[in-house]
Amino acid sequence: MTSPETITDPAKPVPHVVIVGGGFGGLETAKRLHQSRVRVTIVDRHNYHLFQPLLYQVATGGLSPANIATPIRAIVRKQANCEVLLAEVTGFDVAENRLLLADGELRYDVLVLAAGATHSYFGHDEWGPLAPGLKTVADATEIRRRVYMAFETAEREPDPEARKAMLTFVIVGGGPTGVELAGALSEIANHTLKQDFRHINSQDARILIVEAAPHLLNHYPEELCKRAAEKVRSMGIEVHTHTKVTEIAPGFVRLATSDTEFVVPTETVLWGAGVQASPLGKKLAAACGVETDRAGHLPVTGQLNIVGHENIYAIGDIATCLDKTGKPLPGLAAVAIQQGAYVARCLSNSPQHNRSVKPFRYKDRGTMATIGRAAAVAQIGKRQFCGFFAWLLWLFVHLMLIVQFQNRVLILLQWGWNYTTFNRSNRIILGQQPTIEKPRSASS
Amino acid sequence: MTSPETITDPAKPVPHVVIVGGGFGGLETAKRLHQSRVRVTIVDRHNYHLFQPLLYQVATGGLSPANIATPIRAIVRKQANCEVLLAEVTGFDVAENRLLLADGELRYDVLVLAAGATHSYFGHDEWGPLAPGLKTVADATEIRRRVYMAFETAEREPDPEARKAMLTFVIVGGGPTGVELAGALSEIANHTLKQDFRHINSQDARILIVEAAPHLLNHYPEELCKRAAEKVRSMGIEVHTHTKVTEIAPGFVRLATSDTEFVVPTETVLWGAGVQASPLGKKLAAACGVETDRAGHLPVTGQLNIVGHENIYAIGDIATCLDKTGKPLPGLAAVAIQQGAYVARCLSNSPQHNRSVKPFRYKDRGTMATIGRAAAVAQIGKRQFCGFFAWLLWLFVHLMLIVQFQNRVLILLQWGWNYTTFNRSNRIILGQQPTIEKPRSASS
Repeated sequence: MTSPETITDPAKPVPHVVIVGGGFGGLETAKRLHQSRVRVTIVDRHNYHLFQPLLYQVATGGLSPANIATPIRAIVRKQANCEVLLAEVTGFDVAENRLLLADGELRYDVLVLAAGATHSYFGHDEWGPLAPGLKTVADATEIRRRVYMAFETAEREPDPEARKAMLTFVIVGGGPTGVELAGALSEIANHTLKQDFRHINSQDARILIVEAAPHLLNHYPEELCKRAAEKVRSMGIEVHTHTKVTEIAPGFVRLATSDTEFVVPTETVLWGAGVQASPLGKKLAAACGVETDRAGHLPVTGQLNIVGHENIYAIGDIATCLDKTGKPLPGLAAVAIQQGAYVARCLSNSPQHNRSVKPFRYKDRGTMATIGRAAAVAQIGKRQFCGFFAWLLWLFVHLMLIVQFQNRVLILLQWGWNYTTFNRSNRIILGQQPTIEKPRSASS
Repeated sequence: MTSPETITDPAKPVPHVVIVGGGFGGLETAKRLHQSRVRVTIVDRHNYHLFQPLLYQVATGGLSPANIATPIRAIVRKQANCEVLLAEVTGFDVAENRLLLADGELRYDVLVLAAGATHSYFGHDEWGPLAPGLKTVADATEIRRRVYMAFETAEREPDPEARKAMLTFVIVGGGPTGVELAGALSEIANHTLKQDFRHINSQDARILIVEAAPHLLNHYPEELCKRAAEKVRSMGIEVHTHTKVTEIAPGFVRLATSDTEFVVPTETVLWGAGVQASPLGKKLAAACGVETDRAGHLPVTGQLNIVGHENIYAIGDIATCLDKTGKPLPGLAAVAIQQGAYVARCLSNSPQHNRSVKPFRYKDRGTMATIGRAAAVAQIGKRQFCGFFAWLLWLFVHLMLIVQFQNRVLILLQWGWNYTTFNRSNRIILGQQPTIEKPRSASS
């Protein structure tokens, strides 16, 4: 086993750190290694880092994909010891220290798996095409297409019942994603599109949030949940807590509370409910001889490596990391970033050997979620905020976090404009040609 | 036949003007009719108006699609007599004054066909998938994907010959589109990506413009052409005039001059050569019993209507309109806009009868094209400009033309940023998963 002294020996070959995933965790690891005597390769199947916390803004036409996606190469361009590989990872050969790619392979000395998460339909994968989730740029543009097409088809629909279904939006999941989407949809219906149509009133749109737990934003303190729910309701959004989705089919969803069941006719269902780890988690687990949890998260040691594999780390949403009390850490960018920094610190000390380092501890600097126009909830330490001040805080923190200076300015301007004018300039419908199912003779 | 007096009679039904296409011509017609006693419907298969002169900026990662695409509904939202229909036009029943849609039909009193143009491969439609043209947002994002993927695959390619082909970009057509694309590509290779790769030097990229005519920008005065060609060459771009493309195949193009033939190995061919009218031109011609020219343009009278059909107009790139000397007008936004205004004037005077109006005359206010970073050519009346001043002129005119205020400011900022930093922030690769054909073992 190599010791710190031998590592700095210039005669030794430079260890190769391969990072899978250019998200918050992977990127932080790479950047923190800029002065270490290692070679770093970031492998990602996209050429960009995605600022996921603002993805709902793309899905609702407030921002363009490029506003929140920065080329990974541009981020690490000045880091001489780092290269970027645009490739799809297909598996792991841990015995030989090889990463298997769709079109080749890559040898590593240290592997950092930071491949993130995808959505989970809780065993109902057939709901996928009917209720898109929000994890990728493609998801966001698909949701944008569906939302704006719903208004377009309603405009041409003569039957009032069918029109009502087209103007009904059901959001499954009352977590931050669901609440953010609902808030933005309410803005779209009540302000952005107010004057755009001639045969419908966009304000007739009905927006429902369906949440199985007793509260929206269930991970926040109860007081904050209640105030958030009040705010959401004041925006005309129906909140159905203690409610489960039992069926999603073309044209309707079936909802169930503990004592009753009802059907909501709708053409647009959005999924913000469950997440599961990237399928790479299960593959690595099999290769390392460990078991993932039900959602596919990899178990890691206090040093964030896989048990029995000191040169393989798993960080961010793909791993389950327990806090002091034994509770798993939440799937937040802040967790991934701190883990990335921690792994980089371990590797700087001793690239292939981390037992001497103190275990990872997450420093909770607070969490926050927006609700809609100028409203948010935030928890910082023991302090709780709800409303405009929380929103300013949210805005400030998110702008500061965005990687590239230009995007920050453009986003601020775009928001400033949207805020003053209720406009959403990115509401173009791209992708698949509009298919308007029910023909209507638009008479003269 | 109705006279102006009877039209203003409130007892008469309001004539229905149906405009096919929300481009420059169609939109101008609609907007100019805002005070007329007509009902206007704009039919378009997209929900946005596209500012095509800047499409090459999207194709090269300088701007986002939404920067140059404005929802048509937003543009006419305050025009009470105008509605927008998102629909695909499939044909015409001129005997019954009916527009046939993919999912219905629409009756009109007056029809204005402003469906624009698409690219033409001069009978080689099989070249389409190999050499994408630049007319739609989908075209632009596809070109962007190919350009940036070419550098990505080259980065991973160990064979020097294959790598050279991946870094060779052939642009067919030396008109404004071809020259603009080539200029932007040269900037990308020499500045934007300079530090991004570790195994290739992006400045090794070879960029060729192939033009059958004796000059680039063949429609400009010869002196200006020569100066433009000098500028283009000074950017390291190879200019092949008097040269035809005789074959496009995966991996190479075959070029021919009058006395020789040669093959250029390349993985990226972009098409900026020919245009033809939208297929709707031929359909309307058949319905009206007239003949289009070879490129599918509709012949129109001096009043811009189809011979024998006083209530059917064709404007913009779909029509051939002759100037005083009998030469067809160029396919410019300015022509379409002036024609739209002219048609609106005819209709305001007398919706279904335009014989009393003076024939349309195009007022040439000048033309311009950019070449690259801070260089353009412009012709305004008898004055000619080339270089930085022409570029400032170009910038000013194009910003002023863009429909929506917000986009104007954002584009200006984005350009300012790009200009100072050589950055292109919109170079994310979307769409189809990257398929990297030749596997390579990226060794440790």
